[in-house]
Order: sequence, then C-alpha cells, then structure tokens
Amino acid sequence: MDMETEPARMTAAEASALIQSRKMSCEELVRSCLRRIASRDAVVKAWLRLDPDYVIRRARELDKLPSKGPLHGLPWGVKDVIDTADYPTTQNSPIYDEFRVGRDAAPVAVVRGSGSLILGKTDTVEFASMGRKALTRNPYNLAHTPGGSSSGSGAAVGDFQVPLGFGTQTGGSHIRPASFNGIYGLKPSWNRVSREGLRMSSITLDTIGWYGRGVEDLILVAEAFRIPRDPIPVSVKGLRVGLCRSPVWREIEPAGELALSTAAKRLTAAGAIVEELELPEPFSRLHAAHTAIAESEGAAAFLPEYVNANALLAATLRERVENVLQITAKQLLEAYALADFCRPVLDGMFGPKLDVILTPSAKGEAPEGLHTTGDAVFNRMWTLMHGPNVGIPVCFGPAGLPVGVTLVGPQMADSRLLAIAQACAPLIDTEPEERKRRLWPD
Amino acid sequence: MDMETEPARMTAAEASALIQSRKMSCEELVRSCLRRIASRDAVVKAWLRLDPDYVIRRARELDKLPSKGPLHGLPWGVKDVIDTADYPTTQNSPIYDEFRVGRDAAPVAVVRGSGSLILGKTDTVEFASMGRKALTRNPYNLAHTPGGSSSGSGAAVGDFQVPLGFGTQTGGSHIRPASFNGIYGLKPSWNRVSREGLRMSSITLDTIGWYGRGVEDLILVAEAFRIPRDPIPVSVKGLRVGLCRSPVWREIEPAGELALSTAAKRLTAAGAIVEELELPEPFSRLHAAHTAIAESEGAAAFLPEYVNANALLAATLRERVENVLQITAKQLLEAYALADFCRPVLDGMFGPKLDVILTPSAKGEAPEGLHTTGDAVFNRMWTLMHGPNVGIPVCFGPAGLPVGVTLVGPQMADSRLLAIAQACAPLIDTEPEERKRRLWPD
Repeated sequence: MDMETEPARMTAAEASALIQSRKMSCEELVRSCLRRIASRDAVVKAWLRLDPDYVIRRARELDKLPSKGPLHGLPWGVKDVIDTADYPTTQNSPIYDEFRVGRDAAPVAVVRGSGSLILGKTDTVEFASMGRKALTRNPYNLAHTPGGSSSGSGAAVGDFQVPLGFGTQTGGSHIRPASFNGIYGLKPSWNRVSREGLRMSSITLDTIGWYGRGVEDLILVAEAFRIPRDPIPVSVKGLRVGLCRSPVWREIEPAGELALSTAAKRLTAAGAIVEELELPEPFSRLHAAHTAIAESEGAAAFLPEYVNANALLAATLRERVENVLQITAKQLLEAYALADFCRPVLDGMFGPKLDVILTPSAKGEAPEGLHTTGDAVFNRMWTLMHGPNVGIPVCFGPAGLPVGVTLVGPQMADSRLLAIAQACAPLIDTEPEERKRRLWPD
Repeated sequence: MDMETEPARMTAAEASALIQSRKMSCEELVRSCLRRIASRDAVVKAWLRLDPDYVIRRARELDKLPSKGPLHGLPWGVKDVIDTADYPTTQNSPIYDEFRVGRDAAPVAVVRGSGSLILGKTDTVEFASMGRKALTRNPYNLAHTPGGSSSGSGAAVGDFQVPLGFGTQTGGSHIRPASFNGIYGLKPSWNRVSREGLRMSSITLDTIGWYGRGVEDLILVAEAFRIPRDPIPVSVKGLRVGLCRSPVWREIEPAGELALSTAAKRLTAAGAIVEELELPEPFSRLHAAHTAIAESEGAAAFLPEYVNANALLAATLRERVENVLQITAKQLLEAYALADFCRPVLDGMFGPKLDVILTPSAKGEAPEGLHTTGDAVFNRMWTLMHGPNVGIPVCFGPAGLPVGVTLVGPQMADSRLLAIAQACAPLIDTEPEERKRRLWPD
C-alpha cells in the first residue's frame, strides 16, 4: 500500500482488494476512516454513535482471522433506524434515546457474518419517516441538506468517512441522498434482502439499501446477500435505455434535467439506444397510491409510540396514527390494487426493446437549509414498484452540488441491473476524481 | 367476586368487567392463573419462560394505577417469536437461547400500554416456521399435539392458564391451534396490526393474531388496536353465509366435516341463509403460490442465521436458504401476481349476497403425537388472501378433541367480521361449559 494515500479515500472494492491480498490491514483502513471522521464530523455531523477504541479492537480481531470474503474488514456506517448488536438504536427519537437492543438487524447480521466491521450509527430523520431531522450537513456545502432520511449514511460515504453505508427507503430516503452526496446506491428489489430489524414505517414500502463509491462496491455487498454477479457481459453499444421523465416531470429543476440529459447523451455517444419511455396512464396515479399506503401503514406502525409515549412522538406521526388525512380502507385497498396492477406491467416492458430505465434521482441539487431533506417525488413510484434501483452520480449542478440519476430494472432482476449499471457507470459518471478533489484533495 | 370460583376460569371479558368495577384485583386474577399453571404446566408444557414473583409485583403495580381501559390487568401469554421487554426471545432456537432484546414488539407494546400484564412466553415451533417443535401437549389429551406453531399460546388459553394469548400465522399457525384447543382466535387483516418485533419468516404472510375464550375477548383486544366495535347490529336471521369447502376439500377428515356441517346446520336453524360457495379456478392455485412465497421469502429471512450460526439452524430452514425447491424469481412473481389478482376478487364477492364465509379451520381433530403439529392446508389460502379470520369452536370429534371452524371476511373489514362472529358464536359454539367441565371442573 502507498502509505501516502489515506485508505479512507479508496472505494470499498479497492480497499477489499488490498485487504484480501494482505497489503493493507483492516486496522489501517479503520484508523484512516477515524482520522477522516475526526477532522470532519464536527461540521458534517454524520454520526450519532461511534466508539473509536471499540472499533479499533474489532479491526485487530478481524486482522487475526482468515478472510470471510470480499467484505472482510470493510467498515460500515449504519443508519440509526437499523438495529446493531453493539450500539444503541435511537431512531433519532427521544423515546429510544440510548436504547440498546443487542441484536443485529438481518442485513447487519449478514455483512457482519461476512467479515464486515460496524463502525457506527449514522444520523437519520426521526424513525426514517417524518419529524425531527438529522443534524447532518451536505459535505459539499454545509449550508445544504445531505438529503434524507438516510442523511448520515449518505454524507459519511460521500465525504470519504466510511466506504459503505446502510440506508433505507420508504419514499426516496436512499436514492435521493445518493444523488445529493455524489455516491452510488442500490435499493434492491423489495424483500430481496430481509428488512427485519429496521424500524418499520410502511411494510409495503420500507426497503433496505446500501451505499458505496462505485458499482463494484454495490456488487460486493450484493453477493453477500446471495444476489450473484451476473456472468453475462453487458455491452453499452446497442443497450436499450428507456428515458423515463416519469409522471411528475413538472417537478424537475434545471439541475435534475441537466443530470438526466447529460447521462442520456453520454450513453448515446457510447452507442446505447436511448428512447423516451412513456408510462401508461395508471402510473400517474401511483404517487397518490404511495401516499395512501405510507399513511395507512404508518398508522399501524406508530401506534405503539402513540399509546406509550404520545408526547414524545413527532406531531406528524401522531397525525398519521389519528388518520387526519382520513384515508379509508377502500382507498388503501385501491392503492394496493393499483400497485399490484402496475408492477407486472412495468416488469413486462423489459425485454428485447428495453434493457433498463433511466430516470431522475431527485428534482435537482440538494436544497439549502437543514429544515428540509428535499423531495422524494421522483422516487416514490419506483419504491412502490418494488424493483431494483441504482443511483449513479452524473455531474455537478449550478450550485456546485452533485446530481445523479437512477437506473431501474424489473423486480428481482437485481443482478442484471447491477451488471448494466457497472457497464454504464464509467460513461455516465465522469467526475469521481473531481469529487475527491473537492472534498479531500491529495 | 365469588371467591369459590377461580378467576382463571373466566373469559377475558368476564375478568375485565370485574377488574373495571374493582370487584376483583389484577393480583387475584394473576395468582389464579399461576395456580392453574402450577398444577398443569408439568404436563401441558405451554410456557417457556414465566417469572411468578415478577408478574405478581407487576399485578400489584397495575392494581395501584387508574384503569387504562378494558385490557387493564388482563394477563397474556406471548408466543416466543414475539419480543417482550421483560423476557428473553428464544424463538425455540438454540441460536437465541436466553437472548434478551429488552423491547416490546409492536403488538405487545400496544396491549401493555393499554394496561395488560405480560405473564410469560409460550412455546413455539422453531422460528414459528419449521424445525424443532414445541414441547407443548394438547390439554384435552396429552398424547396429541396442540397444533402449531402457536402451540403454547393455544394450549395455555385453552387450558384456562391465561385468558389471552398472542400467536402468529404464516400458514395456519394461529387458526389451527385455536381449533385444536377449543378456543377463539382472530387473525386480523394483514398489517391491520403492526407485526414489528415478531420474528420474520415471510413478509407477505406473517400475521399477528390473538386468542381468547369468546368473541368478546377478541373484540376487547381489537379495540386497543383501533379496530373499533362495529355499531351496526348483526341479525343471524337472513345472514348470508357462504359455505366454502375450499379447493383442498379432498384433505378433509370426518371431524373437520362434522364441525363444518354442524356449524352450517346451527346457523341455518337460526335463520341464516347458508349456501355453497365455489371459488373460481385461480383460487385452486393459491396453495402452490403460498408455498412459493413462503419458501422464497424464507430464504431471505433466514440468511442471517445461515451465515452466522449455520449448524444451529434447522435443516429444513437451511434448505430454504439454499432454495432446494429451486423456486425461481419468475415463479415467485407469478405467485405474487396470482394473490394480487385473487384478493380483490374475493373481497368483491362480499356484499348483498354474501356476508361471511364459513370454512374449515383444520382437517379434523389434533393428530396424535408431538412429532407433527397438524396440517395448515385449510388455512394457507386465507393467510395469503390477507383478510380477517375468526376461529370459533364447534364440537368435539370422535377422539374427544375440540374442532372449530373459521369465519372469513374481506380485507380490512375486521370490525364487521368480529360483529358477525359475535352474533354467530353463541349458536355455533354450544360447548363452552363442556370444555370447562372436561379440563377444569368446579
């Protein structure tokens, strides 16, 4: 290892290769992450809980063990609505302040069992839902949000504080922070990876996801979850890309439009066949269906806190339990039926004429201020459709903040989507060195 | 209170009325339950964990508090795949022996917050799935199973050891033990009540449920979950009952047939219009769809134990993770699509011509031996359809064991189904005194 380079600047895949070949120790990587965090967390505020001594001891233990595979020794930031055996799960709620569950959530157990090191817990919007915001700031501009609700994981991975992070998505909580922080994110197919041990907000929508700084990072993690690497090569030349402005295109901002058109141009220049994709009329009603489902299922999800700790629950969540929007059972069932209708329709569009959908990750750049985490309007429909999404950085917007796009595949075709993303990413994302230069120059 | 009657022989509703009027204390009720348990648990073996001193202290505390409502002071048995703040959650797995999570599952938090007392944890099939069986025996005949996987909760409520119990259902784990133990059970609509904090086995199928010894017991609990009492009266005269032998009728045994025909006759005699209900062809494929979903989703659910504690996981669950049945993503998505198609079709059958469906709860009486918990063949389709089910006892079979039937309503119409069940139960279930006489005579 070139000791003049901080290991924390590497991608997970780069670090993994060095750890596997014993050219770098897990301890070296973790110490580098801790140095970066020490120099940055006072302003970025990505972490809710991190015990440096503890994680160094764990790193040393991992260095003594035979490798458990490509994730061995790689550190993770874990969004604090996800249980870990070693840290409290506060959910950024005063109700669960300092509460320790002592059991890993299913996705944490799998990466830990694959040799990963849980570095610490990252800040989140209260219950990954509504209410209290994370204190986290956007590493590219501290006056801007890093997005949410996976605020801390997005910012920590983007700011080179940790190579891998877990987020969750119910509306746009995973893919939007990927875009705002210039990183890669996979939201796998719904229930392709067990979400047990994540705070439940909406059983139909909540999905675990992970962040990295390249598609290869996402693939290394996917393999631990038995989402195998797709052996069939992908050629961008001739790749059929559906450019989907989505039924909410009126919400787009110049930076979001720039990212989408830039990605499309770069793919076209490489020989991909990029064509506009119009979704049939029922898809325009999915946004309202998402709201009905999130609200109704949230009423069941937050009843325990409503009953036991009413005054400490965010007003927005109390209102959800009280069903102030007056969503009826009929509306909920119609929302389910619409989503159930649309999912196979969307899946059926893929085939000889469509390999992948290209769509916005967010309206535009991360908004200014920490009172908002941005808008999930371009993500909700895809969350409800349950298929895999990969967020890829594209360019910087007029405010100097990163903007990304989303690739979408059909349900359960996660391996294929990752292979397509891996072929497309080097063309779409021309700025990885520029991101490093802006945040952490040599 | 007539102190010559043991309070544990009362239904939850009877005990609630006495506690509300301060004619009985929570401590008196709990001590009576503990006496019954002390005299019976050595043979029935319903409980995995119960701390008598602790629960008596808790009962005394509850007696000092103002009532939190109808559930105040009522004791519960909680199936040991459901987290409670005060007891370990072992899931009947050696992997989680003595593991304490320290946080109530969502349904436990709601009843505890409504004044209930968590008496102890009840035995279960490993992970409420496959593998190690509960040690629990059928209280009516110790050589027979109490059913599963909610074995301990079913037997404890049936044997008058505790008035209320939580169970879970993925196939037939809640309704079948209700039938085998001569008790009432509600499986509410899927996600009508948050299942957070129950061990996940299949996200699409797992459903929380509760047991009592009368429909009023089920309603008292439902109200705590904001499933309100239906104010519109139900008349059995003219009630439209669809007698659904279901697509698996060939599996029925004489006792199951007797229970169904007896219930139908009793309702007809009271003026109900009971007519055969044939389900359209696609419903005959739901059984296979259930298998595809349970297996595929189980592969994701048990990956953490497969990775971290492989040798301690039941072979049947290891095989699920390894997908030995070779269920493809296409088969899983077709199974989802079939269920998605059938749910609104089934819901749409209800209306002026159909108030409620009457269908078997099990093939027949509880089988002999503890190597099996019986067969979920008559429950799986209804679990997958996501609507509410109420199990009601009917009669004794030729082996002297109780047999019940199931009432089914459309999704999210839980309140109406409970009202219908309350009107029908006194007609269908003619043996409540006989059950008491057999298990715990005066």
